[in-house]
Amino acid sequence: MANRRLKVGLIGTGHIGRLHAEDLARRIPNADLLAVADVFVDAAKRCAERLGIPRAVADYHAILEDREMDAVVVCSPSDTHGQIIVEAAAVGKHVFCEKPIDYHLAKIDAALAAVDQAGVKLQIGFHRRFDPNFRRVKQAIEQSEIGQPMLLHIISRDPAPPPIDYVKTYLQHGGSLFLDMMIHDFDMARFLVGSEVEEIYALGGLPVSAQTAELGDLDTAVVTLRFANGVIATIDNCRRAVYGYDQRLEMFGSGGSISVGNNFPNAAILSNGERISRDLPLHFFTERYVEAYTAEIQAFVDAILDGRPVEVTGQDGRAPVVMALAAQKSVRERRPVRLSEVDG
Amino acid sequence: MANRRLKVGLIGTGHIGRLHAEDLARRIPNADLLAVADVFVDAAKRCAERLGIPRAVADYHAILEDREMDAVVVCSPSDTHGQIIVEAAAVGKHVFCEKPIDYHLAKIDAALAAVDQAGVKLQIGFHRRFDPNFRRVKQAIEQSEIGQPMLLHIISRDPAPPPIDYVKTYLQHGGSLFLDMMIHDFDMARFLVGSEVEEIYALGGLPVSAQTAELGDLDTAVVTLRFANGVIATIDNCRRAVYGYDQRLEMFGSGGSISVGNNFPNAAILSNGERISRDLPLHFFTERYVEAYTAEIQAFVDAILDGRPVEVTGQDGRAPVVMALAAQKSVRERRPVRLSEVDG
Amino acid sequence: MANRRLKVGLIGTGHIGRLHAEDLARRIPNADLLAVADVFVDAAKRCAERLGIPRAVADYHAILEDREMDAVVVCSPSDTHGQIIVEAAAVGKHVFCEKPIDYHLAKIDAALAAVDQAGVKLQIGFHRRFDPNFRRVKQAIEQSEIGQPMLLHIISRDPAPPPIDYVKTYLQHGGSLFLDMMIHDFDMARFLVGSEVEEIYALGGLPVSAQTAELGDLDTAVVTLRFANGVIATIDNCRRAVYGYDQRLEMFGSGGSISVGNNFPNAAILSNGERISRDLPLHFFTERYVEAYTAEIQAFVDAILDGRPVEVTGQDGRAPVVMALAAQKSVRERRPVRLSEVDG
Amino acid sequence: MANRRLKVGLIGTGHIGRLHAEDLARRIPNADLLAVADVFVDAAKRCAERLGIPRAVADYHAILEDREMDAVVVCSPSDTHGQIIVEAAAVGKHVFCEKPIDYHLAKIDAALAAVDQAGVKLQIGFHRRFDPNFRRVKQAIEQSEIGQPMLLHIISRDPAPPPIDYVKTYLQHGGSLFLDMMIHDFDMARFLVGSEVEEIYALGGLPVSAQTAELGDLDTAVVTLRFANGVIATIDNCRRAVYGYDQRLEMFGSGGSISVGNNFPNAAILSNGERISRDLPLHFFTERYVEAYTAEIQAFVDAILDGRPVEVTGQDGRAPVVMALAAQKSVRERRPVRLSEVDG
Repeated sequence: MANRRLKVGLIGTGHIGRLHAEDLARRIPNADLLAVADVFVDAAKRCAERLGIPRAVADYHAILEDREMDAVVVCSPSDTHGQIIVEAAAVGKHVFCEKPIDYHLAKIDAALAAVDQAGVKLQIGFHRRFDPNFRRVKQAIEQSEIGQPMLLHIISRDPAPPPIDYVKTYLQHGGSLFLDMMIHDFDMARFLVGSEVEEIYALGGLPVSAQTAELGDLDTAVVTLRFANGVIATIDNCRRAVYGYDQRLEMFGSGGSISVGNNFPNAAILSNGERISRDLPLHFFTERYVEAYTAEIQAFVDAILDGRPVEVTGQDGRAPVVMALAAQKSVRERRPVRLSEVDG
Repeated sequence: MANRRLKVGLIGTGHIGRLHAEDLARRIPNADLLAVADVFVDAAKRCAERLGIPRAVADYHAILEDREMDAVVVCSPSDTHGQIIVEAAAVGKHVFCEKPIDYHLAKIDAALAAVDQAGVKLQIGFHRRFDPNFRRVKQAIEQSEIGQPMLLHIISRDPAPPPIDYVKTYLQHGGSLFLDMMIHDFDMARFLVGSEVEEIYALGGLPVSAQTAELGDLDTAVVTLRFANGVIATIDNCRRAVYGYDQRLEMFGSGGSISVGNNFPNAAILSNGERISRDLPLHFFTERYVEAYTAEIQAFVDAILDGRPVEVTGQDGRAPVVMALAAQKSVRERRPVRLSEVDG
Repeated sequence: MANRRLKVGLIGTGHIGRLHAEDLARRIPNADLLAVADVFVDAAKRCAERLGIPRAVADYHAILEDREMDAVVVCSPSDTHGQIIVEAAAVGKHVFCEKPIDYHLAKIDAALAAVDQAGVKLQIGFHRRFDPNFRRVKQAIEQSEIGQPMLLHIISRDPAPPPIDYVKTYLQHGGSLFLDMMIHDFDMARFLVGSEVEEIYALGGLPVSAQTAELGDLDTAVVTLRFANGVIATIDNCRRAVYGYDQRLEMFGSGGSISVGNNFPNAAILSNGERISRDLPLHFFTERYVEAYTAEIQAFVDAILDGRPVEVTGQDGRAPVVMALAAQKSVRERRPVRLSEVDG
Repeated sequence: MANRRLKVGLIGTGHIGRLHAEDLARRIPNADLLAVADVFVDAAKRCAERLGIPRAVADYHAILEDREMDAVVVCSPSDTHGQIIVEAAAVGKHVFCEKPIDYHLAKIDAALAAVDQAGVKLQIGFHRRFDPNFRRVKQAIEQSEIGQPMLLHIISRDPAPPPIDYVKTYLQHGGSLFLDMMIHDFDMARFLVGSEVEEIYALGGLPVSAQTAELGDLDTAVVTLRFANGVIATIDNCRRAVYGYDQRLEMFGSGGSISVGNNFPNAAILSNGERISRDLPLHFFTERYVEAYTAEIQAFVDAILDGRPVEVTGQDGRAPVVMALAAQKSVRERRPVRLSEVDG
């Protein structure tokens, strides 16, 4: 398939869908975004018009049925992912799917089985793996710049809680802070440690949104992970850091340590009679991870065209869901939970 | 002209020309890059093909004669800028022109007069004014975050000297380190200080390229500028900083100081048994100023469509040339030189 | 007692004892160090000679019996602390005692009771509370610069494991990594959070010393603390960070975050063709906490002379021992342990 | 003289005198400060009492006549330095003298001749050479960490102008900003570059004190130095930086660059809804250079006891005065001035 261009359709033109659409239309030179689908067809049409995409439809089956189409990018609501993957695999389309695949392991397993059987590629949207900061950490680990990894600390805080309706929606489908937000950090931990988690201990912290607390979800949590290779990791999530999006981590090893701080809109340092200061970090994920989003779609397109494996597999999409389920159980039962307890 | 799109032609598809072409074709939503011209017509064609530009020609007059065209972006060799500006103005095209307008004041003045007479807009390619770091410094000054500006220090060092043929070419046309490299820093100093330079003292430093020294040009220099408003600035240029592109400055004022450091490819900090370290800064101007290049072309397009003045005028293009000429004279005569001495 | 000078004796002229002796003899203007005692009397004599201390004895009872003496500084082996405190209180001496008071709660409680009954002051040697970095964090919390504290992360790593005999000794007396090293971090967590811990979950990490592992002690551990006020803290200890002594923390709150990094021997940044780097941090606790050691002894002297309460009380010495015992139990039983389980 | 202790007298118990006295009395283990002298004998007595110095006199000749005394530390007003050095040398005392030796070359030369003839040691109080930051820069240069030095930039700003009477006094004796403040930076430049200055160009900047301007002195200046070995240096001095004492420099070389920033009272970083900030740097020279002051006196004592040359010679004291005189002339005549013009 080398030297060909990839024909792509995109399903779901919400926030993330439009972001991927813009990359596919403008920044990925070897992809053609030929159609977008959304049940709110006006949203699909606006998106298509703005980016010069030839076709906008309400029903994604029109994309799946298009024999010319090589691949689909799935950005629809999380509870529809499994079904769409199964259908896409059945008609031989490669699939890029936003996280999480689903909140229920049975549906995930059905999707992964369909993909396996069809022999198509499936890449999951853990874009942070493509961020230059975290890639540099991964490189340091792989090139033994820090020796044997021993301890990992991830800090991942949002600037502000999501709309309460967003929380209600994911709670209705069995979601939680762990499945919605920390799932990215679970993936990052696995990605960097290069081993599987055996046991998880999760603690809920002080709430930042009374509404979320009333609904029964956490918005602050600290989780400890014990990996099979002996690495211990902690993850700190909070839905509100008043200073903005806070995305940092440190991997400590026998030969040193590598840490990454936040990215900033500028490198200016202001000194006045009060303090030495700089502006707040880049505000939220679309600013912070702009390069990463482009890079993950590029990698998906290249993997298909070059016949190489994708960098974030279906199994990489499944494992963090298991971790999140274990974290949920740990909070409920106030004890460390082995992953085998939730993945029977 | 509001709500219209700007029809643009581009002249000169060398390194900078291709960079602007890519921005116009991919990142500027309200511009249509309709044609590129280059005397090496194959270069023009390759550029057009890669970016989906409808037309590629050898002779730029084909662009100037196209009545549909609103504006031209001039990236041809420096000694052709003046002539092209005059011709473009004569047919009512707005002009974006790479720096320097020319190395000779008479030709610059003829170009500026032509532009004035035709009533078209002319923007000069001092892209650093659009860099987020330097914009933040400008903002701090304008919003009195540092009080009255008093002292400015600019450090501007390249990772490696240009090919010696490049140096030969500019020397043949009357250029020098000051007209080729420091001209950006002269512009930055004027931009930030908001006043005109009265006197310049320039000292050549130790050479980094024996070939350049043989040809009679400097590749290391320190220049002191005295502005009419009392601000003193120093500029440090060197053609070779082994650690990469070094673009920093500090403005010190009565109420504080603002400084900007370099930009880096990642925010990773590595600690091992030897040291605490980070990777080298972004390598050279195309990496470092990628946002600035896009922003300057966007500003040009917007200024025309919105009927607003351009942010970098023809006079802004002329003044740094005068400064460079004074610096050249200062080095030759080993004394401070007033700008009036070279701008009779 | 204002305007008087404090007459002090010091018991135990090992590493820490000599450090305190030097501060008392040279840097504390309102203290007179009149005598030092050590069972290795030659060590006491060398110390006295070097610092011009009038008297050196083998038996600390000579100091306790000296009616002129106001206070004693206890730097003898940990298992003798309780006994010396009881004896010193009985003869009305104020006591500064190195941490830990003891590894056994019964002995600690006996010492605290003796102090209470005698009405003398007892200060425990948690010097980090007096470090300018951590004081600044405490100040930020107290002055509401970060709102309501929510999450605390402490990283505390040594440059190299202690001699194995040192480990053997503390293990024989019932000690552990938690009682020897993390006890400082337990204290820091209590100091900053301003609440008591309810539950602790401790995990041992990959060992850095095979010998220590053979003896049954940990040298890498991650501990999660749940405080009564809802704050969650994590502590990361490792006996070997190849880049040196690593003492950092972050307190995150509803109104912001304050973090402290390491201290360095110089502020030099070196840029070469490989990297941007700085020298390693200050090597170990005597370099890192030189100001803190002086400040804690000064605070002790001032508290007595001014009749004010000490800043680190006997109860502050007891609580981290309880926390360490809970951590030990948590590691053994692989579950979170409530402090009430070990403090019946 | 090895293994002996040095007997020292100190002349002048003003601010700097008391600072040196405290180091000699408390922190220099191999020196005995036996006497202090001050024409304001009460000041001498208070100093002696506070530090336990045996003797306080009004007339420094009492110290010079004391045959037991090995060395004197001269902290009297600048215009008395030359005379005291001559007298001290005549009676065979080693001399540590605060900068400047004098403002007049003839008096400096007489003092240096007297010292040479007597064969005693003379060290000048350029304490910054002993600062850990600048020592690290010197080390980087000496160990070829940055290749051949090419460009040096020194920033040296005070937090606030001195009392106007202080300015009046030095102006009456022929002093200036260059002889009072920039003299330290002139020395630092010579120290780091390791070559002699050939030519100086000095520009006065905007004044920060109207009173100083009325008296005819500068309080802001930028000076460019051309060294014999081709290095170019700039020095930026200002009497008022609202954010505090600002002591930074960068040496750039063919193999890299080393720069030093300010020192801070703590390493805390505060993030809130407005900004990321840290506290202001250490306020002024007594806080900033506390280690350097101790180290320079220690080095003086050691040089005598060990029979080694001092690290800052009389010639090192003379050269910056010549540089300052050239700078004064450059400002007056608005042109670069060769040092040979002022040092006939």
